[in-house]
Amino acid sequence: MPKNLVVLGTGFGAFSCLRTIDKEFYNISVISPRNHFLFTPLLPSTTVGTIEFRSIIEPIRNLKHINFYQAYALNIDTVNNVVFCEDADTKNKFHVNYDILAIAVGEVTNTFNIPGVWEHAYFLKEVSDARKIRTKVIDCFENASLPDISIEERKKFLRFVVCGGGPTGVEFAAELHDFIDEDVKDKYAELSDLVEVILIEAGTKILSTFDANLSLYTMKFFKRQNIVVKTNSNIVKVDDKYIYVNDGTRFEYGLLVWSTGNTASQFSLSSALPKNNKNRFITDKFLRVKGFDNIYALGDCAETENDPRPKTAQVAQQEGKYLGKALNRLARGKEIKAFKFKDFGMLAYVGGRRALADTPRYKGSGFTTFIFWRSVYFTKLVSLKNKILVLFDWFKNILFGRDVSNF
Amino acid sequence: MPKNLVVLGTGFGAFSCLRTIDKEFYNISVISPRNHFLFTPLLPSTTVGTIEFRSIIEPIRNLKHINFYQAYALNIDTVNNVVFCEDADTKNKFHVNYDILAIAVGEVTNTFNIPGVWEHAYFLKEVSDARKIRTKVIDCFENASLPDISIEERKKFLRFVVCGGGPTGVEFAAELHDFIDEDVKDKYAELSDLVEVILIEAGTKILSTFDANLSLYTMKFFKRQNIVVKTNSNIVKVDDKYIYVNDGTRFEYGLLVWSTGNTASQFSLSSALPKNNKNRFITDKFLRVKGFDNIYALGDCAETENDPRPKTAQVAQQEGKYLGKALNRLARGKEIKAFKFKDFGMLAYVGGRRALADTPRYKGSGFTTFIFWRSVYFTKLVSLKNKILVLFDWFKNILFGRDVSNF
Repeated sequence: MPKNLVVLGTGFGAFSCLRTIDKEFYNISVISPRNHFLFTPLLPSTTVGTIEFRSIIEPIRNLKHINFYQAYALNIDTVNNVVFCEDADTKNKFHVNYDILAIAVGEVTNTFNIPGVWEHAYFLKEVSDARKIRTKVIDCFENASLPDISIEERKKFLRFVVCGGGPTGVEFAAELHDFIDEDVKDKYAELSDLVEVILIEAGTKILSTFDANLSLYTMKFFKRQNIVVKTNSNIVKVDDKYIYVNDGTRFEYGLLVWSTGNTASQFSLSSALPKNNKNRFITDKFLRVKGFDNIYALGDCAETENDPRPKTAQVAQQEGKYLGKALNRLARGKEIKAFKFKDFGMLAYVGGRRALADTPRYKGSGFTTFIFWRSVYFTKLVSLKNKILVLFDWFKNILFGRDVSNF
Repeated sequence: MPKNLVVLGTGFGAFSCLRTIDKEFYNISVISPRNHFLFTPLLPSTTVGTIEFRSIIEPIRNLKHINFYQAYALNIDTVNNVVFCEDADTKNKFHVNYDILAIAVGEVTNTFNIPGVWEHAYFLKEVSDARKIRTKVIDCFENASLPDISIEERKKFLRFVVCGGGPTGVEFAAELHDFIDEDVKDKYAELSDLVEVILIEAGTKILSTFDANLSLYTMKFFKRQNIVVKTNSNIVKVDDKYIYVNDGTRFEYGLLVWSTGNTASQFSLSSALPKNNKNRFITDKFLRVKGFDNIYALGDCAETENDPRPKTAQVAQQEGKYLGKALNRLARGKEIKAFKFKDFGMLAYVGGRRALADTPRYKGSGFTTFIFWRSVYFTKLVSLKNKILVLFDWFKNILFGRDVSNF
């Protein structure tokens, strides 16, 4: 009889495992509050409509021969091999038995408990986040268009603040700039000079994981694009009107997007499995959680002992694929090798049809790299449907511009 | 100096007026909480993803030479010719002066004050309504997919109830049936036998404004499609669990869509302009509100004295176009003729690639009429972009099916 494999999550780790695994060996159940896979590297592009939301998601049910449960995993009983769950919509409780468990629940946005962030900032991890941002950006422009308000008030609505100078924050700022440059001038003509984009970063530079020259290039390029980069700055408090910075100043804002990295999810926090000081599950080189031979952990929520890897989509994707193959080999009674990460480098879009590439073979920036960036992600999209839709979106934008309808 | 023309609304009446009017004659301001035009005849198709939301909307700002304010009109001062408004987002108040005013605010869904409808039912007038329905439909299927629940509970989640047997209700039921037939069988295979679609209509038949044979055809066709039609039925109460019907029965439900027609909006209710017993603005044959020569009313919110017309998109569209032309002629000092409605008949989609046509020249039903239905609405779409997007959606569905991702 096939063993029960339970996978928690539908992100890069879980999805690439599910795509790789041979469904005849296992009776597979997938548990996640999200019933689709999201191609996160292109998520910033959806915030202003460069790409549509449904172009970069893939329903998990398009994979055949799996049981999917749209629910949160609450906790695990490792003695009886049971996962306890809660329906994401109705809050009904249920449980699922496993022989093998793969934990790929990811992490959640880290607000560092800074007052007001949870209530007033917008995040950028899920499609629903991107949709909220898209609506809010247009609302800001519509609000600033009304009569009887002062220039100062208009400028307030049009002050877009991004906290966090990592790839997500930088790419959102870049997309926003493109939108202002290519669409606002046309559709909100009288406002285009009033817009401000401010990127706040706690460290000394943005894109700090990239090659120093590329980071510097981005700083200079953003300056030319009128994107204000404030390094060595921390937001210490947010309320409905002001953002308070650690230098004692405060300013009004229209939209605050928060992308300062991630932290452990509720599932990880409450789990009794072995965790490190970041509340990530500690695994061996085979991605098995320490002390268990039937529980695996991968992606952002896991860390291999003495071999930490960056928390990126690329790593999670490779780990998922590795786990799928490993489980196939185990089912066939074959030996497995330890996981080995192959670093293909990093890419980032910086706006104005320019991108950065920091790969082992090639480091570069500019328009050619932009073409490279698009090609790579286009290739990496997980389905033919996604590829056709993304191509169509790019083509549509050239022809008609971005849609500013608000709903 | 050009006169100030203020248009309230962005529906069929307002939009076709704005498209027709010569912008050099007027300084035009448009006020509406919705910053886009919505092609409502295809709205039911978006509830299950046959067509995507953005394929049938057109940003009002794509029209050149108008000022748009995303706001509610609250009331009018007809002595000083001022419209008082409130920002739809921030609730900031402002006012706009007019020389000529065109009121095309439409109506809102009528709940008949039936207890629980406002809280528990889903409506189908705006894109945001359609999006909520789409999310809820998928949630129902996901909830019904969970383990540890009884067949009865699954059936409850999958009981889709539509109240109102007019074109919107019928077309929603039809789209839902297509979704069940074409996608559920594939993606929620074990559930497809548990789904129920129930259409509740207070009158003796559905599509009562259509030719009697076509109405009968739809009743029979729905029966064959396992869509239960309950005529002579009224919902008397709704709570979070049950729908209560006037025959004393009650039943559990997964989703209730309410489409029993419209009633006056808050703007109409609170207006001091001359209104009839349905709170619609009374106009003369030139669409001028009774007693005013600089205030026009058109579309659902208006009624011509002694010449009531059906409250359809077609009527509003013709009235808007008429008003645009009339204002152009007035600006040129030319005479204008009274408005005359040219009835092109009605169309409705009933599912399974069948449609109805009830036009002066042709009455029919079936697949050929379905092609006719698609062709007519395709032609009527207001922009090249909309046409390309809708065509692409139809094509995409044939290739890949509907997207069941939930966000």
